[in-house]
Amino acid sequence: MAERVGRFTVKMSKKPSIIGFAASGGKKEKSGPIGDLLDKSFDDDLLGQDSWEQAESALLCNSISLALKKAELKNDQADVIFAGDLLDQSMSSTFGLKQFRIPTVGLFGACSTMALSLSQAALAVDSGWANVAVAATSSHFCSAERQFRFPLEYGGRRTPNSQWTVTGSGATVVGFESRESAPKIDSVCIGRIADLGVTDANNMGAAMAPAAADTIKNFLTDTGTTPDDYDLILTGDLGEIGSRLLQDLLERDGIMLKNNYDDCGLLIFDKDSEVGAGGSGCGCSATVLCAKILPEICKGKLGRVLFVATGALMSPKSAQQGLSIPAVAHAVLITS
Amino acid sequence: MAERVGRFTVKMSKKPSIIGFAASGGKKEKSGPIGDLLDKSFDDDLLGQDSWEQAESALLCNSISLALKKAELKNDQADVIFAGDLLDQSMSSTFGLKQFRIPTVGLFGACSTMALSLSQAALAVDSGWANVAVAATSSHFCSAERQFRFPLEYGGRRTPNSQWTVTGSGATVVGFESRESAPKIDSVCIGRIADLGVTDANNMGAAMAPAAADTIKNFLTDTGTTPDDYDLILTGDLGEIGSRLLQDLLERDGIMLKNNYDDCGLLIFDKDSEVGAGGSGCGCSATVLCAKILPEICKGKLGRVLFVATGALMSPKSAQQGLSIPAVAHAVLITS
Repeated sequence: MAERVGRFTVKMSKKPSIIGFAASGGKKEKSGPIGDLLDKSFDDDLLGQDSWEQAESALLCNSISLALKKAELKNDQADVIFAGDLLDQSMSSTFGLKQFRIPTVGLFGACSTMALSLSQAALAVDSGWANVAVAATSSHFCSAERQFRFPLEYGGRRTPNSQWTVTGSGATVVGFESRESAPKIDSVCIGRIADLGVTDANNMGAAMAPAAADTIKNFLTDTGTTPDDYDLILTGDLGEIGSRLLQDLLERDGIMLKNNYDDCGLLIFDKDSEVGAGGSGCGCSATVLCAKILPEICKGKLGRVLFVATGALMSPKSAQQGLSIPAVAHAVLITS
Repeated sequence: MAERVGRFTVKMSKKPSIIGFAASGGKKEKSGPIGDLLDKSFDDDLLGQDSWEQAESALLCNSISLALKKAELKNDQADVIFAGDLLDQSMSSTFGLKQFRIPTVGLFGACSTMALSLSQAALAVDSGWANVAVAATSSHFCSAERQFRFPLEYGGRRTPNSQWTVTGSGATVVGFESRESAPKIDSVCIGRIADLGVTDANNMGAAMAPAAADTIKNFLTDTGTTPDDYDLILTGDLGEIGSRLLQDLLERDGIMLKNNYDDCGLLIFDKDSEVGAGGSGCGCSATVLCAKILPEICKGKLGRVLFVATGALMSPKSAQQGLSIPAVAHAVLITS
């Protein structure tokens, strides 16, 4: 039975494995540093659909189908899907998942969704109430811009500290199996909502850094470990500004992140003026995890990865009302 | 350890209990059939806040605080909160929950959220990874109208088959305790997204009925039971049209819902022209459950209640794109 460690962390009893995983991305993601690692990429941003939102649904379905196939499972062999996205009423997940006819737990964690869904899938499998659980999420540059900023047609100029929403999706299948190389979930740490009063929706990294610091600190305290105990501590999509802020915040508590720290928002795109402070969106940490990190764990290149996806939980309405941006970060310790 | 029963149902091993619960509502809810049963009601629709969305947050916080108090627990004694709402990016939950500083799993299930959150809280406690889990949700007539239909100031005329969003919130605290009268969670059935092509956002009952039929059928099949085995089968907010449609759909499969069937959307308001086909919103099933049903279980008036909250998963954007309304229903069997 899963065991609580300290106040916030839960350690799995049986080490559920990630028995299948897949990442899909768009054209820009394909041309970036992890482009060759994607399972599938699409040159057409619309993926042959009628809207950006439906294109995002197609991206999500593609990743889930691929991940199930790689786990050598049929759709009806999954007991539950945990998924969500950034859009109003999780539109891309809702419309994407209806084709699967699998019991569905809709999640909302904005860009933290990959870690949130993976944590819930791992807990479900470890607890035995699901034999196979899918965890997945997606984002699309065009649906996110229209949702949170301006329709692309406006041609609005972006601020240098804004981040570029990843057109991508990642899916993992959690279960038990004999293949020894499959990455295992060791423990999870569910985050608390943190809000330090940042109101600039173009500076989400700064809004999310305090949540990431809170969760990392909680996890290290609960487990009695230090950053040196991990091969990689990987945040979701803090980007340049948020990553530096996170390091500063943790340093104040005597926690030093060194060379074993990185951020998915800094790994997904080549540095250019268009990208701003880095990648973001649910698909950012999801594609980096599924395309780059999990394969490296399978190959034995990485042993212990603390994956901390971060989410800025603002809505267009809260921004219009001048409210600050609450954020959350969820952590999953994945081991070889 | 929780045990899978059939393809969709999970039976708890230890019968986690609902050790605290509370319901809050607005003025209209106060004057309705369950008005006297509410733990707290507010005459001021804004609850002293600056916006309808923030008023909804206050409603949610009020219910959670009351439920924790009734369970004789402090905030920091809860290990996790499962919550969500109808608004874009779950705005009322996000902004409401940040004050609690408890690990938070954001959910999206639209009006099915009370059953979805209760199912996840029960599974967490039964599995042992949480000792105490909160499940809560809310809706507000004014924030929902502005979100999904028209700002109130337009004074738009409502169709007769539309439903009236409940201004209300319900919260439950799941844990283990010795008080024998506390309602227990026996089993849960997580729903699949169903979409039969209904596109009228003013007829959500019709859109949700197929999902409710699917989940009820799955649960009865998995458990080898019939409607006669329950004191009450209670759907979330199908309203008049959806309830009749559900009965028709189940009848085709030889499942007859009789006098032990009811719908929260028909229980919450007095019948008047304003209300249309009944109540709706996350707060509808949440307030009816927490104000009326759980107390009746405690008093021994009801023994076995199959609570099936239903959610219409459309977004304003999907409606604008002319897409149909996917729906989901989650079931929780609550026993005395």
